[in-house]
Amino acid sequence: MPDRYAYLGPEGTFTEVALRTLKPDTPADAFVPCSGVDTVFESVRRGEFTGGVVPLENSVEGGVTATIAELINGEPLLISAEVAVPVEFVLVGQANTELADVKHIATHSHAFAQCRGWLARHLPDAETHTISSTAAAAQAVAEPGSPYDAAICARVAAERYKLHVLATGVGDRADAATRFIYLRRPGALPEPTGADRTSLVAFLSNDHPGALVELLNQFAIRSVNLTRLESRPTGDGLGNYCFCLDADGHVAEARLGEALMGLRRICKDIRFLGSYPRDDAGTELTPFLPRRDTTNADFHEAELWLNRIRAGEAG
Amino acid sequence: MPDRYAYLGPEGTFTEVALRTLKPDTPADAFVPCSGVDTVFESVRRGEFTGGVVPLENSVEGGVTATIAELINGEPLLISAEVAVPVEFVLVGQANTELADVKHIATHSHAFAQCRGWLARHLPDAETHTISSTAAAAQAVAEPGSPYDAAICARVAAERYKLHVLATGVGDRADAATRFIYLRRPGALPEPTGADRTSLVAFLSNDHPGALVELLNQFAIRSVNLTRLESRPTGDGLGNYCFCLDADGHVAEARLGEALMGLRRICKDIRFLGSYPRDDAGTELTPFLPRRDTTNADFHEAELWLNRIRAGEAG
Amino acid sequence: MPDRYAYLGPEGTFTEVALRTLKPDTPADAFVPCSGVDTVFESVRRGEFTGGVVPLENSVEGGVTATIAELINGEPLLISAEVAVPVEFVLVGQANTELADVKHIATHSHAFAQCRGWLARHLPDAETHTISSTAAAAQAVAEPGSPYDAAICARVAAERYKLHVLATGVGDRADAATRFIYLRRPGALPEPTGADRTSLVAFLSNDHPGALVELLNQFAIRSVNLTRLESRPTGDGLGNYCFCLDADGHVAEARLGEALMGLRRICKDIRFLGSYPRDDAGTELTPFLPRRDTTNADFHEAELWLNRIRAGEAG
Amino acid sequence: MPDRYAYLGPEGTFTEVALRTLKPDTPADAFVPCSGVDTVFESVRRGEFTGGVVPLENSVEGGVTATIAELINGEPLLISAEVAVPVEFVLVGQANTELADVKHIATHSHAFAQCRGWLARHLPDAETHTISSTAAAAQAVAEPGSPYDAAICARVAAERYKLHVLATGVGDRADAATRFIYLRRPGALPEPTGADRTSLVAFLSNDHPGALVELLNQFAIRSVNLTRLESRPTGDGLGNYCFCLDADGHVAEARLGEALMGLRRICKDIRFLGSYPRDDAGTELTPFLPRRDTTNADFHEAELWLNRIRAGEAG
Repeated sequence: MPDRYAYLGPEGTFTEVALRTLKPDTPADAFVPCSGVDTVFESVRRGEFTGGVVPLENSVEGGVTATIAELINGEPLLISAEVAVPVEFVLVGQANTELADVKHIATHSHAFAQCRGWLARHLPDAETHTISSTAAAAQAVAEPGSPYDAAICARVAAERYKLHVLATGVGDRADAATRFIYLRRPGALPEPTGADRTSLVAFLSNDHPGALVELLNQFAIRSVNLTRLESRPTGDGLGNYCFCLDADGHVAEARLGEALMGLRRICKDIRFLGSYPRDDAGTELTPFLPRRDTTNADFHEAELWLNRIRAGEAG
Repeated sequence: MPDRYAYLGPEGTFTEVALRTLKPDTPADAFVPCSGVDTVFESVRRGEFTGGVVPLENSVEGGVTATIAELINGEPLLISAEVAVPVEFVLVGQANTELADVKHIATHSHAFAQCRGWLARHLPDAETHTISSTAAAAQAVAEPGSPYDAAICARVAAERYKLHVLATGVGDRADAATRFIYLRRPGALPEPTGADRTSLVAFLSNDHPGALVELLNQFAIRSVNLTRLESRPTGDGLGNYCFCLDADGHVAEARLGEALMGLRRICKDIRFLGSYPRDDAGTELTPFLPRRDTTNADFHEAELWLNRIRAGEAG
Repeated sequence: MPDRYAYLGPEGTFTEVALRTLKPDTPADAFVPCSGVDTVFESVRRGEFTGGVVPLENSVEGGVTATIAELINGEPLLISAEVAVPVEFVLVGQANTELADVKHIATHSHAFAQCRGWLARHLPDAETHTISSTAAAAQAVAEPGSPYDAAICARVAAERYKLHVLATGVGDRADAATRFIYLRRPGALPEPTGADRTSLVAFLSNDHPGALVELLNQFAIRSVNLTRLESRPTGDGLGNYCFCLDADGHVAEARLGEALMGLRRICKDIRFLGSYPRDDAGTELTPFLPRRDTTNADFHEAELWLNRIRAGEAG
Repeated sequence: MPDRYAYLGPEGTFTEVALRTLKPDTPADAFVPCSGVDTVFESVRRGEFTGGVVPLENSVEGGVTATIAELINGEPLLISAEVAVPVEFVLVGQANTELADVKHIATHSHAFAQCRGWLARHLPDAETHTISSTAAAAQAVAEPGSPYDAAICARVAAERYKLHVLATGVGDRADAATRFIYLRRPGALPEPTGADRTSLVAFLSNDHPGALVELLNQFAIRSVNLTRLESRPTGDGLGNYCFCLDADGHVAEARLGEALMGLRRICKDIRFLGSYPRDDAGTELTPFLPRRDTTNADFHEAELWLNRIRAGEAG
């Protein structure tokens, strides 16, 4: 059976762009849009697809709640790739529409939030209508007799629905980006590349001053850099959180392996979400440079030394 | 001019319940619903209202993105009170509706997410329709000829729209709660009560391993307990975060004052959001017990000692 | 060849008591006094003795400089046992001497320092004479025509030199004790007993604020308790120190092994001095209780978990 | 009454050199040698002298036990100056002595320890005799009919006893140095100079893993560099230590003041020993550069900010 991939639909969203970037040589009919983040997870869990793509975080809006909830709860899936997609919004309409004619604009509420400044400057009198996704907005505009003159969406949606681009760069943040993750069922991890990321969820054991410092120290003391730390409610009442972490490095590396074993010992629970190559497009992350004392070679040398002194040789 | 208060509308939401709890003896016409979180902030900033109430975090969904964005950016407002409201969902319909008749249910998407289990058990065949708020769903059901047979909403919405409660406890989490904050323009802080909370936003100076540990250590070393830590994107591209923190204690206390001065020195920027009495209803937080060595008296004694040794007396 | 043991002489010192305690069933002629700490080390290094005993620290005077210098420099020896000996001083004289007759007292300068209070109360007018060891003082008193009427020494010296005990408990500190170590050439370590101690010397890499905290954190984060920390000059000019450390636990334990590997990576140099059973006589150390998350079983479980997630199984 | 100063005698020791360096324009008869470190402390405590000088630590031998014991116990004195004196040993004899004639050498045991290499190379067959101080050795050599042909001592002793220098640089460490401190009764501290040192003794509250880390963190978190950390027994049985610390900075500085208040709160007891200008001669210490976020100006700015937010102004 050929590989098939689920993604958060409908067609024409940034998620589709992310999937195409991750699987560039795959025929389009292998990509299947799903109606929700939970549907993508569930269908991959059931083995209906080889893998699936969902958004994890946006540089303006932050973490995607539905994705994080699925990563934390339910049967575990592994993240085995990521891609950061620049979020470039365009304003689209039917072929005969002029910018000056636009009175009714449809788009997703997040897109509105990110285009508010442009709209105030260029279309201060237009009415805005919130719809379930930017692609659905484009689709609605493409229908005959649509109540909307224009949609704000990704460029790919304009192509799909054969719409005319009335304006580009309508987002207020030129550097906005969304990070997407590729999920699949547990199985052999991607090989370390030297510039990897590891994701996990940690549930703290007890709520004493310094419990979180203790957790972060497990990384700091081994010079493991954290690139994301996001608290999420566990669902068990206000004030109970777990922490979603992204760390530089691959679990196959000694530095990170030891840090994770440390977490395993001090946390009430810990869920490993995957180790995979970093995609630094659209980020301002500094290149990965492990400190002199935490390379695999350093760990190996220290282990040989420990073996020697345990054997009673002169240390 | 009598006091007037803004809140995130429409009428009949949990936010209205929160505001009534905070201002119990205030006539109902002093409460003004606003169409969005940003509208509440803006109208309070302009001085149109004495204060306003918005949700900050939900025990199932986590932080409310729109509220946090307004707290981080724009002209600062002060949080001067909080209230935790249990989220009890009810299923409501018109007077003649029976539970067995319900085929079409309207509610907000978050409410659906929190009632999925109950619906699967009791109304597995009903269709669900997403609407802008739980109160708007109730209002829609109340209209003659409504396409919806029932709504999931707060009990207060049933009363407001004169609807019949078909079922109670339809949320999957009996202990679900939402924390609301009361905002006003800068001015004298609430007096310390002995069980207070302080909220702030910290922007880290540089992205080195351990920068966050350094920040948290400023609290840990002075035995200040953190009750919430939430990273949010700064908007400047992926990988740039600031941290929203809640700490036990009042800024007027020496312990917290010194910790905040420490943050002020090591952070790129820091925004103080307020010190206000803790509302522990619906939370599992342990009562506040400062360690022996960090009471105001301990700080005072240490300061007297420092003055003595600085003056050259025997230490 | 029968086993022979070197110790810091002369005969009749507390060091001889220590060696007899460690090797209770050994004939007395197997114990050979040496004239200095360095002689004990050198003769054990050359293989002339099976092992040797020297004092490491005294509860009143602190670390023994000569011993620590030999442990830090020169060819490494292993500590494979320790014993804490109560330091009970007695005043001794010839058979016909009465306490009231004592005008000239001989002893070692450290012994004088520890008996000053008793002497002031009981023999305020006696002259004191400093001599190279307490046993040499006893020997001098035993000689015919000695210029000294009495010596302060260990009880064992009174027996050896056939002297009369004029007074007991002449030390100002009833709980004074000295810790002695048994040294031998590198070879198989003593088996872990569950209540062991590990000694080592750490040379810090660079002199930045927090370098020592970093070192201590390698222990703290793995709940390894330090029972002694003593800085010593490296000899390379003022301001350059190394640190002699005693830690609870045996190098064969995972908790301590990982901490030592951490030191090995961050230190300029580290010298392992041995793991051996604790002797808690005369100490106020609390019994050894590793934290729940740092037992060997905890480390083993965490390693199995790490292996599972590295293999791509659900974490 | 003119100022008079006590020092650890006899005349001709390095301590006299230290005192002359500290009080360069003082007539020689104002300097009074004392027979022991304790005598210097006691006579200064009783007000018989304006101040006194004793050695604190040597770059080869480490801390001077008698000095540290007096600093920790007894009535407190203040350190108000320090000086580092290079330890240059010379071999001296009477005018008619040739190096080749030297058969019997007298000196202090510490001096022997530091000259062992030179003696082995140049006078392998000479006998060595231990005497109470290097100056006493010189004095003994100067006496008619002395049993010693030569002494190892400071150059100043050769001058005082009119002896002939047979060889210079006989110490094995060219960079050896001793640090001396100037003590006086409590009173106004020396003014901050921008390159000061602060000395203190800390008694830890309880013996839990990490107690010492906690103490050191009070310095690290405020970027205060420690230049010396030395554990000393409290005298209350083996395993009970206090810690003698030297920190960069002056107690009048905010950074150090706050750190000391932190220690005051967490320690069982703390004794302030003084703030005084650093003497960096003979040390390898890097020049003092406080971090950007811990200058007095940084503390002042943070305090102003804290006052603003406590007053309810926008933070």
